[in-house]
Amino acid sequence: MNYPSRLVEEAVLEIAKLPGIGKKSALRLALHLLKSDLGVTHRLTDALLNLREKTTFCTICHNISDGDICQICGSFKRDDSILAIVQDTRDVLAIENTGQYTGKYHILGGIISPIQGIGPNDLNIESLVERVRNNPEIKEIILALSPTMEGDTTAFYISKKLSEYNLKVSTIARGIPIGGDLEYTDEITLGRSIVSRVNF
Amino acid sequence: MNYPSRLVEEAVLEIAKLPGIGKKSALRLALHLLKSDLGVTHRLTDALLNLREKTTFCTICHNISDGDICQICGSFKRDDSILAIVQDTRDVLAIENTGQYTGKYHILGGIISPIQGIGPNDLNIESLVERVRNNPEIKEIILALSPTMEGDTTAFYISKKLSEYNLKVSTIARGIPIGGDLEYTDEITLGRSIVSRVNF
Ligand SMILES: [Zn+2]
Ligand SMILES: [Zn+2]
Repeated sequence: MNYPSRLVEEAVLEIAKLPGIGKKSALRLALHLLKSDLGVTHRLTDALLNLREKTTFCTICHNISDGDICQICGSFKRDDSILAIVQDTRDVLAIENTGQYTGKYHILGGIISPIQGIGPNDLNIESLVERVRNNPEIKEIILALSPTMEGDTTAFYISKKLSEYNLKVSTIARGIPIGGDLEYTDEITLGRSIVSRVNF
Repeated sequence: MNYPSRLVEEAVLEIAKLPGIGKKSALRLALHLLKSDLGVTHRLTDALLNLREKTTFCTICHNISDGDICQICGSFKRDDSILAIVQDTRDVLAIENTGQYTGKYHILGGIISPIQGIGPNDLNIESLVERVRNNPEIKEIILALSPTMEGDTTAFYISKKLSEYNLKVSTIARGIPIGGDLEYTDEITLGRSIVSRVNF
């Protein structure tokens, strides 16, 4: 494409590096910013820089956090006896939005995938085992992983790792379409699948 | 949605203000930046700030430009005898990409739309009339506007404004689907519609 300006071209190329945004969409976004008040661009870039530079990860559950301990881990209203094991932050948000879960979380940061070269040691599994060992108030683990081959492999690995502890290990009910992505599941299905979770 | 971090929430809200991006996509983009190197966010925000703060508009054709005169207006290779009148920069890019046009442009900055309260005085039409008056080498005007009611109204208004000058006034051939958006037209159709342009 022939851009009218080198600066427009550079902006389009950078925007189009984002996942799911093609060059045509990127150009539309760039022209939108050009037409809008300067403040629109400043608020956007400030928010992106703050996001990237100032957020950290919760030292307990590994969720994204503004401080050492996230809002969920620091809350006295949450049930300490139950942990939902999820792949990433989007799954936490999806489950929180169902309003059906009052326990805490442990974020793996990914899923075991031999094809992508992701093994158990690349995930927050060792810290989960330690967390269970050091916190006897934890009575139940919900494996809230996507019902894919990688999800099943990861669930099986974790259940074995935790087998020596006296825990109920459940998995969210397979109301979720097999092969589907957990984060795209509608709230009602996902909420129901948590309520009707079954032993793993 | 319950966000794990205030900074994530602010970033999602700012990203979701962009046209065509919902909160779910915005969250996906935010998490992508969080996972990527710091440089990815810096290159993006630098490009957006440069775009918004350093680009200007060409004083001749009103296209977005890095300086007072854009690359097309400043080029000795372009045909000075012919001007394509377009709504905005995206149309310039769409026409440039056909490779069928070697003339110059005049960007209206919009289209006459009584419903949106956009009248002739809100557009770069007076500067077009002056440009034609001061540059007798201009022999032809191509009205390259979308074939919608607003596009037709704008084309009619401009053709009347220019009627006292000795110009050929043409319009791009209506190979473009009626009611369609010029910028979404495929390159072949758009290229052909320029080659087979007809007198207006
Ligand atoms: Zn936490
Ligand atoms: Zn120009």
